Amino acid sequence: MYRTHTCGELRLSNSSQEATLSGWVQRVRNLGAMTFVDLRDRYGITQLVIDDESSEELKSLVAKLGREYVIQAKGVVRERSSKNNKIPTGEVELEVKEITILNESVIPPFTIEDESDGGDEIRMKYRYLDLRRNPVRNNMILRATMAHHIRNYLNGKQFIETETPVLIKSTPEGARDFIVPSRMNQGEFYALPQSPQVFKQLLMVAGFDRYYQIVKCFRDEDLRADRQPEFTQIDCEMSFVEQDDILNTFEGLTRYLLKEMKNVEVDEFPRMPYSEAIERYGSDKPDIRFGMEFNDISETVKGNNFKVFDDAEYIGAICAEGCATYTRKQLDGLTNFVKKPQIGAKGLVYVKCNEDGSFKSSVDKFYSQEDIKKWADQCDAKAGDLILVLSGDKGHTQNALCELRLEMGNQLGLRDKNVFKPLWVVDFPLLEWDEDAKRFHAMHHPFTSPKAEDYHLLETDPGKVRANAYDLVINGVEIGGGSVRIFDSELQSTMFSLLGFTKEQAEYQFGFLMNAFKYGAPPHAGIAFGFDRLASLFAGLDSIRDVIAFPKNNSGRDVMIDSPSIIATEQLDELSLKLEVKED
Amino acid sequence: MYRTHTCGELRLSNSSQEATLSGWVQRVRNLGAMTFVDLRDRYGITQLVIDDESSEELKSLVAKLGREYVIQAKGVVRERSSKNNKIPTGEVELEVKEITILNESVIPPFTIEDESDGGDEIRMKYRYLDLRRNPVRNNMILRATMAHHIRNYLNGKQFIETETPVLIKSTPEGARDFIVPSRMNQGEFYALPQSPQVFKQLLMVAGFDRYYQIVKCFRDEDLRADRQPEFTQIDCEMSFVEQDDILNTFEGLTRYLLKEMKNVEVDEFPRMPYSEAIERYGSDKPDIRFGMEFNDISETVKGNNFKVFDDAEYIGAICAEGCATYTRKQLDGLTNFVKKPQIGAKGLVYVKCNEDGSFKSSVDKFYSQEDIKKWADQCDAKAGDLILVLSGDKGHTQNALCELRLEMGNQLGLRDKNVFKPLWVVDFPLLEWDEDAKRFHAMHHPFTSPKAEDYHLLETDPGKVRANAYDLVINGVEIGGGSVRIFDSELQSTMFSLLGFTKEQAEYQFGFLMNAFKYGAPPHAGIAFGFDRLASLFAGLDSIRDVIAFPKNNSGRDVMIDSPSIIATEQLDELSLKLEVKED
Repeated sequence: MYRTHTCGELRLSNSSQEATLSGWVQRVRNLGAMTFVDLRDRYGITQLVIDDESSEELKSLVAKLGREYVIQAKGVVRERSSKNNKIPTGEVELEVKEITILNESVIPPFTIEDESDGGDEIRMKYRYLDLRRNPVRNNMILRATMAHHIRNYLNGKQFIETETPVLIKSTPEGARDFIVPSRMNQGEFYALPQSPQVFKQLLMVAGFDRYYQIVKCFRDEDLRADRQPEFTQIDCEMSFVEQDDILNTFEGLTRYLLKEMKNVEVDEFPRMPYSEAIERYGSDKPDIRFGMEFNDISETVKGNNFKVFDDAEYIGAICAEGCATYTRKQLDGLTNFVKKPQIGAKGLVYVKCNEDGSFKSSVDKFYSQEDIKKWADQCDAKAGDLILVLSGDKGHTQNALCELRLEMGNQLGLRDKNVFKPLWVVDFPLLEWDEDAKRFHAMHHPFTSPKAEDYHLLETDPGKVRANAYDLVINGVEIGGGSVRIFDSELQSTMFSLLGFTKEQAEYQFGFLMNAFKYGAPPHAGIAFGFDRLASLFAGLDSIRDVIAFPKNNSGRDVMIDSPSIIATEQLDELSLKLEVKED
Repeated sequence: MYRTHTCGELRLSNSSQEATLSGWVQRVRNLGAMTFVDLRDRYGITQLVIDDESSEELKSLVAKLGREYVIQAKGVVRERSSKNNKIPTGEVELEVKEITILNESVIPPFTIEDESDGGDEIRMKYRYLDLRRNPVRNNMILRATMAHHIRNYLNGKQFIETETPVLIKSTPEGARDFIVPSRMNQGEFYALPQSPQVFKQLLMVAGFDRYYQIVKCFRDEDLRADRQPEFTQIDCEMSFVEQDDILNTFEGLTRYLLKEMKNVEVDEFPRMPYSEAIERYGSDKPDIRFGMEFNDISETVKGNNFKVFDDAEYIGAICAEGCATYTRKQLDGLTNFVKKPQIGAKGLVYVKCNEDGSFKSSVDKFYSQEDIKKWADQCDAKAGDLILVLSGDKGHTQNALCELRLEMGNQLGLRDKNVFKPLWVVDFPLLEWDEDAKRFHAMHHPFTSPKAEDYHLLETDPGKVRANAYDLVINGVEIGGGSVRIFDSELQSTMFSLLGFTKEQAEYQFGFLMNAFKYGAPPHAGIAFGFDRLASLFAGLDSIRDVIAFPKNNSGRDVMIDSPSIIATEQLDELSLKLEVKED
């Protein structure tokens, strides 16, 4: 037996008991007369002490111990003379009688401490050592615990967790499918699922009524900072439900998780139409932990011969409380921020609301104090506040103002990671105009149903049609999204023709699911949560990578195992494939 | 709202209440004065009744209903005049006021009943309709329930469920790897994991202590009857443990599952060395629901000038209780059975132990009654029993006798699906001699540790070395297997050289894991259960296909979605790949 207790288990009540521990050497302190060894495992740290009267054999063994050696120590638990109240085992130590070195360790490339000295790259290469660090491992434990709570909740609501296939069919739509050549079916390919969408809808046709799955999905796309080629979804679908049933069920799940994991109780989630979210926050995933909402001051500011404003389609202002004291340098910083290429504003207009009731703005030569007073009134600005104004075409300006608002939220400490403000964004547009292709795309997917009250617009003004589609947003992060599906084949045909499909194309691309729908498809709706993102939000992290045990980098590489990699020509031969990499 | 209750919910206590149900039309019975509709959903069936006094509109709507139509029915619950005590809702019916057809259905290609008239092929093509049938859906629910119990049990024992990557690295060993071309890394490939073996060992190096995962694995191989290219494992690993800790933990899990799922309590699982299993049952996965053990009667029967026996390396007999009454035809049937090519025995010798104490055998001209009496004694055969004897070279004969024993178990009804007899088979050989390659292969994998007491044989007689490897067998089905891993690099080097690797080859193939082991690898051991197989065993099914929602056929095809399939040349171009299917 390697151990009688873990390194996190012994207490004062175990005093005088014999115990055997196993773990990693965190630290050795040789104080001459005695030597202390901090022994670590997943559960904690226990102090071993090798007294002066120990055998020479034991002492010389201890002298050999290095960081991260794996050892077994037998001895007797005793009360410490100098207690450490920072750790649960801090009142005791193990008076060692015998040590066995189970495995040696070469010197690790970075320190195995809560704050490591290793850079990102080296830590990813030696991920198995990075995972030894408490904060990293704790993120994985948090993720596992969340998954368990999610399953408990959904099982309790009669959802059936059902595994859907990973080797599926590539669709012509599937430009970002990973494909998998089949050896048994030469010249044919599977694809890895971007989501189990088709299968979960089939499970509704099959009468499963309530389905969920915590499932790996795959997308072969250029990776932005926070994407992974393989990611995990909490995928759900329900039959005989309307939009509110989905919202209520998954609001329930989210509240349950917040309570269980973070001990946070949240009020009913606000439900905000997409159009309102754009007007108030310039985003379909607003961070509502703080206000600083947009004010459209176009009508107020136009007509004063300030050409920038007069020519602008949209002029939006936000009010940053108490920031009238911002220095020239700080204001220049904000101007540079909004001018960054990825934000793309041309400039920033500011108004300081001075304590004496006067205003100081960057456009004082165009506007009088009375003019500016109107802006301040419209923005509910008080003495001491700072008004920031962006202008230009509507879409870009709203985007830029949204980024500025978030930046101000950061600067003012209004985005506390321990505060959780969930929000349902609803009534998304059904269609999105693709300027390049000169046609509509489905904003969610082609099976999303339009709102019944907008049916009449389908033929006349399709861009105005709202969908029964919804997103769950927490703290400005899109956690999940879904829709009520079309289950009526006539409406589905209309949708396909709106999306520019001929009957034949629709049949070719979606015939299989449409065929299933002929056999009595129930009304159904669903949602999928990004589990990596939800876990990173709960862990207070910025990147999903930190809640994935073995993540890939921005090039889709696992630098630890060095994958992807070249393979033997024989392997390709067996699949009847030949590599033809073009020279650039 | 589509429904106030499910179709399995209404009881006599709901009488006079208004209710709205939604579901599928199972059956319509028009009795002239009234019409009955059986409405079905996942939860049950409720009888709808449309009375004679109903509106003509309602009556004509009901006349249109066909099988599998999806409808919503509003009405009042009332007591039935003729009750059906076979279903929980059988005391009531819904007196219908209003019906809405939610979706029509074309006539399904087979009946949606517990016993369907559909053949295997058509049911797989329309799997979404097959899944509507109660027994099929119930298998999926059983599977989901099992997964939930497994997670509860392992979470309760401080195992951390950790997701390992699906896009990993192909190894030269990985002849049966599915490979996945990378778009972002042209000319390079990921592989899908045959198991998370490397990652779970790395998690032990990382100090996770206890890991599990219910995880999809992949193998691109010719499929035998009961294999799937993608399958699900319950994958586990523990640190600071010995073989007994693994056996005890997972015996605990299995007993817990048997109790929770089947209400079966099982005694401590027997632990049988591999060599003993082979001697007694001719198999490393014996079905111990019944005895009929092997008797090696070589010494007893040789030397009577019966050349078949005299030349045989091994002569084995089993005793089938009460089968002395077997007819000529039945005995011929058994002879044909053992002569089938896949069993491959040359013939079958039998001895009937007559009620009068005499014997009738197929080799009476070589053996006297006294001779045969000795066989009978050795086999513990009583009057009325039938002794069946096979002979030949040892391995093949034991295999054939094993098949014959199982066949007799079937014929005698000794293999009751409601009886569960688990067994640990332990002490597997470490190595397997490969006659073609003239070298040893690792029987489990190259990281499996040899038994300490056999170390001395490693150099002198490696074929005799036993491993710390074990299988869990239930009712003759291999449910899982695992081993205590090597964590000492010197022993690992010895293993590699035994397996015929040069230092360079070992480094190339396993260098990555060996490198991780240099940083303080703890002693560790693990096991993996075939979840599909475990679920099919618990469901009393013969094939794993029946516990998989969307399985593939023997050619690795999903006939429902028609996958794998050809893909567009552009998709291959983007991956720098070219198809070169050889003409046969």
